[in-house]
Amino acid sequence: MISNISTSDQRFPLAEGEGIDAIHQNPVYSYSVTQLEDDSGITGTGLAFTLGGGNDLVCQVAQRFAERFKGCEIEEIMSDFGTHFHALAEDPQMRWLGPHKGVVHLALASVTNACFDLWAKKRGLPLWKLLLELTPEQFVATLDLTYLEDVLTRDEAIALLQDQHSTRSQREAVIKDGYPGYDTSVGWFNYSDELVRENCKKAIAEGFSAMKLKVGSADPDRDIRRANIVREVAGPDAKVMVDANQQWNLPDAIKICNRLRDMNPFWIEEPTHPDDILGHRTLADEIKPLKLAAGEHMPNRIIFKNYLQSGSLGFVQVDAVRVGGVSEFLAISLMAKKYGLPVVPHVGDMGQIHQHLVIANHIAMGHEALFLEHIPHLRQHFTQPAVVEQGVYRTPMEPGSSSDLIGLA
Amino acid sequence: MISNISTSDQRFPLAEGEGIDAIHQNPVYSYSVTQLEDDSGITGTGLAFTLGGGNDLVCQVAQRFAERFKGCEIEEIMSDFGTHFHALAEDPQMRWLGPHKGVVHLALASVTNACFDLWAKKRGLPLWKLLLELTPEQFVATLDLTYLEDVLTRDEAIALLQDQHSTRSQREAVIKDGYPGYDTSVGWFNYSDELVRENCKKAIAEGFSAMKLKVGSADPDRDIRRANIVREVAGPDAKVMVDANQQWNLPDAIKICNRLRDMNPFWIEEPTHPDDILGHRTLADEIKPLKLAAGEHMPNRIIFKNYLQSGSLGFVQVDAVRVGGVSEFLAISLMAKKYGLPVVPHVGDMGQIHQHLVIANHIAMGHEALFLEHIPHLRQHFTQPAVVEQGVYRTPMEPGSSSDLIGLA
Repeated sequence: MISNISTSDQRFPLAEGEGIDAIHQNPVYSYSVTQLEDDSGITGTGLAFTLGGGNDLVCQVAQRFAERFKGCEIEEIMSDFGTHFHALAEDPQMRWLGPHKGVVHLALASVTNACFDLWAKKRGLPLWKLLLELTPEQFVATLDLTYLEDVLTRDEAIALLQDQHSTRSQREAVIKDGYPGYDTSVGWFNYSDELVRENCKKAIAEGFSAMKLKVGSADPDRDIRRANIVREVAGPDAKVMVDANQQWNLPDAIKICNRLRDMNPFWIEEPTHPDDILGHRTLADEIKPLKLAAGEHMPNRIIFKNYLQSGSLGFVQVDAVRVGGVSEFLAISLMAKKYGLPVVPHVGDMGQIHQHLVIANHIAMGHEALFLEHIPHLRQHFTQPAVVEQGVYRTPMEPGSSSDLIGLA
Repeated sequence: MISNISTSDQRFPLAEGEGIDAIHQNPVYSYSVTQLEDDSGITGTGLAFTLGGGNDLVCQVAQRFAERFKGCEIEEIMSDFGTHFHALAEDPQMRWLGPHKGVVHLALASVTNACFDLWAKKRGLPLWKLLLELTPEQFVATLDLTYLEDVLTRDEAIALLQDQHSTRSQREAVIKDGYPGYDTSVGWFNYSDELVRENCKKAIAEGFSAMKLKVGSADPDRDIRRANIVREVAGPDAKVMVDANQQWNLPDAIKICNRLRDMNPFWIEEPTHPDDILGHRTLADEIKPLKLAAGEHMPNRIIFKNYLQSGSLGFVQVDAVRVGGVSEFLAISLMAKKYGLPVVPHVGDMGQIHQHLVIANHIAMGHEALFLEHIPHLRQHFTQPAVVEQGVYRTPMEPGSSSDLIGLA
């Protein structure tokens, strides 16, 4: 039984230059942490990610939301988690502050993730294994699929999981081999050209064959020059992504993306405002066959539904510490599977939770095991930091979702 | 000079049944109030609207944002308000909590509205008159048009205002005649059929020829029956609107809207989730020639841009206490004018600020003076409550934006 609830505002200043992009010039990677203490002595830990400012506000709402679960058994909660999620997301007063976005939805992510973590720890299973052990019906019972009825009904979701069941064994090698990673940290926005070049070499030496550069400079020539440096060092076969973090308006995005064609980016990420669904559609048409990736600032399944329907994205970057936690991440992954698009999460959690989720996506849903973003900057703060060796995430075997922070475990 | 800043969490419980709709079952109409005290002794008051829960969070952020203006002259701020708005909206840490939505954006609304209120009070003018006295360049300098470059550049916005200037006198009669209102309070969700019937009769006796009913019942037959009651009492020439407050999923919305055809609704409001841009497009196609209205839960100009581009709405219900205040309201109104759509605000402010804004929209931008929502439930809390006589808003003549609350003036 959940006997105690607490939240905690955890902020981790970064080293100089780390985490900086065209839009976010002073990030302090931070977690709004929810902890659900079970009277068996086990504590579930849930994270939502922010850049520092307002992290306390998310904690305040998470505390209010988590009260719902005091005195409850985690197995009972999770047997029908979709209903609980729905009740919190639709709180008739707090809903006005969203709906399903902003502080209230980040708080819901934190609480949701604490529930999934506690559930897996109580069963003594890593989260990925727990998700694979659920029947399709049990799996879908953890989801809130309201407002998706036009594209994914409950029955369709169950059928999708059932269809993939017979071919699971073909995809289970990922557990032993590990899930490929890509290096996001070669080219933060303020890094010098020389440092970018050096970091690319290091990434290749460490076994990565995919890496990402921050673009969105006031001077587009700088973007082009740096993108060419990465391509030159990484070689023609490496996957090189560029990320503008919403810096461009639509006319500028069209111009600059077209100038980036020559260096053959694997994707162009967050070219413009995340609410601009039709803008992404126009841009995708203008820069064919280049592909767009986005998702880190898309708050909920309804927005993702629109992006999937519009056909503008090549890659879905949903983040379980931005949308309503593991539950909504899985709902969006199911939709993406239906639309035939790969899920390549943004990792506000530094990959800790997502290393579990991409395995579940791959084995249970049949998603391609493309690669998972790797950001090493908070390694020292997790009790069980993700292990990436030779460019590959080693499959986590500890019970839970690998979300525990040192000093809070 | 702005010498003191304060915020205040003001909540006003309603009488039984008031304000209740299909989704919001326990509203406490509330304002996150920002006050900017000028050393001349004048105080600017700004409102953001919530339903109670989390109103304190909006105040916390508004307090942080408003600090920017301490020690500044209001005339100087407003000569370039678009830049200040942009700086707050793009705060590189707080932006993560949006961007441009949720608690942080409501806080921006509150602070923005306090700036406009102080500005008008210092000039001794009602807000509508101040807005009409600005040159097109001064008007547009109060706006942040970033991410709209594909549909409305700064030059286009100025040109739009210039184009309307020569015909202003044809539209100035509204100042003397007043702006028509419509009655939103005839049919709150839980009101009995008898009370709805009685309220409709009262509304007509009071001079209204337009009124709105809450729908979205679990039993669609109830919606149809009640809509027919309103139509029957109001007569065939009255404008009768129905409002589902996002209660329907898309398949249900299509079914029920089609059943509502016979009572000839003037619009169907918030049929489904406000983030479902493509869903609204599909619905609009399915129910032609019925028209959709939405906006009260659309947080920013980028979302409105998408709705305008998609052509799914017949009426734009932007609300200056939901989007980033008066500034973003005006930016969205300019876009709506370009797309030829009427702006019929949702009035989280109970019409206090919007009675100014619709006059400016009509005279300065050439928007049709259709009608403005009227909700009387908070009259007793404003120092200068909007006066609606014979179904018409009397033009406010007091300096400012009519936002002062008793006990806070």
